[in-house]
Amino acid sequence: MSAGTDRAWLEAVAWNAEGLAPALAQDADSGEVLTLAWMNREALARTVELGEAVYWSRSRKALWHKGETSGHFQRVVEVRIDCDADAILLRVRSVGGVACHTGRRRCFFNRLEGEGGERRWVATEPVLEAPGRFRDG
Amino acid sequence: MSAGTDRAWLEAVAWNAEGLAPALAQDADSGEVLTLAWMNREALARTVELGEAVYWSRSRKALWHKGETSGHFQRVVEVRIDCDADAILLRVRSVGGVACHTGRRRCFFNRLEGEGGERRWVATEPVLEAPGRFRDG
Repeated sequence: MSAGTDRAWLEAVAWNAEGLAPALAQDADSGEVLTLAWMNREALARTVELGEAVYWSRSRKALWHKGETSGHFQRVVEVRIDCDADAILLRVRSVGGVACHTGRRRCFFNRLEGEGGERRWVATEPVLEAPGRFRDG
Repeated sequence: MSAGTDRAWLEAVAWNAEGLAPALAQDADSGEVLTLAWMNREALARTVELGEAVYWSRSRKALWHKGETSGHFQRVVEVRIDCDADAILLRVRSVGGVACHTGRRRCFFNRLEGEGGERRWVATEPVLEAPGRFRDG
């Protein structure tokens, strides 16, 4: 944090044993849930400083400024935590209208359809941009 | 699952090492993110069977049919998973309009406010129902 001597707000988050918390991004205008990623203390501090979502990539074990390779930054309008302080909710504006590394508007594009033994996940969102043009971690 | 011999849809979820995945509930009408809880295979199977959210309580290590003590069931309109299949999104109608054990409409009632070293979490939602009347786990 910039002027940050007071990190109480950051320590108020109930980070898990690995120092992480799940962080949702929700479109500030449409209300769509775009992504679920993870943050550690530094990711949240940088998100708030920068006004753009910075996550912790569990696969790459590194901070991940979303959009740094794709251009699809998430501009942060509001930051919330839940009653247990163990989950983070960002309301964001998604630059370019694509939040998912598959080139879709949002990551939650698979809907459960069918009945009984015939249930299956069906992709309901079109690919807006060729995947592979970017890879966000 | 009822007729369920085909559990492929259930195994398509990328359950973590503990057999869990985070599960968000979003209000199907307002789009508000209400809760983030956890599911295991059985919780998701029962949610789909029942049409009401059933979670896995990590503290109680037991299935938790949300609303069983409070009456605040979450009627499920749609079930989605994300691109990595490691997060679940339910669109729900929240019975009684209260989703949080604190008696608020949603769990994400704490908003980050202030600047620099003066940041703090501020509760932005009124308590609609006395907490303690119920405890949902």
